[in-house]
Amino acid sequence: MNTTASHSAPPPVDISIGAFQQLIKDMYYEKDVARGVSGTFMWLMEEVGELSSALRSGDRENLGEEFADVLAWLVTIANVAEIDLTQAVAAKYGTGCPGCGKFRCDCPDKEKP
Amino acid sequence: MNTTASHSAPPPVDISIGAFQQLIKDMYYEKDVARGVSGTFMWLMEEVGELSSALRSGDRENLGEEFADVLAWLVTIANVAEIDLTQAVAAKYGTGCPGCGKFRCDCPDKEKP
Repeated sequence: MNTTASHSAPPPVDISIGAFQQLIKDMYYEKDVARGVSGTFMWLMEEVGELSSALRSGDRENLGEEFADVLAWLVTIANVAEIDLTQAVAAKYGTGCPGCGKFRCDCPDKEKP
Repeated sequence: MNTTASHSAPPPVDISIGAFQQLIKDMYYEKDVARGVSGTFMWLMEEVGELSSALRSGDRENLGEEFADVLAWLVTIANVAEIDLTQAVAAKYGTGCPGCGKFRCDCPDKEKP
């Protein structure tokens, strides 16, 4: 374990979905919009494949990286498509399960999800 | 436009990634863990397909729903795989672009991403 202050990782910030969407926009938007939705979707699919591999590999650090990458590419497509993920999430899940309306889902087991 | 107070949508909360991961865990965890990673991955793939359709359809409301669903299923897999997405995102993107280290990426255009 590295205990050198300058190398120790800061505690992770509990970043909001909106702040992460903005961070990715600030970081990559010009490239993303030039690539467009279809090209960006292909990057998302590549990362989804890497996530699938990582889920089977047992390498926890790599698994975390792949989750972060899939999330980043999903957010990137939302940026290109001009969708506010905070609004989207609030509209779909902000008042409970879309199926039963409860904050602890009691939809019948056979029903989605 | 519906202006009835009881029906007007509240402003969306700028929910954190961690709070959304916990919301989905509280809502669905028992079903999710019973289904496992592989079965949950199939749900994610179904929603990715629906997102692809929505990106081509032009229906903005449906598009928002599909982004929310893909995000929810990604978070669900993270719950089952016991990955903290806040930590994962901080580790990968918290100090800038993983390629060049800048908060406004200046990686060469031919390089990922």
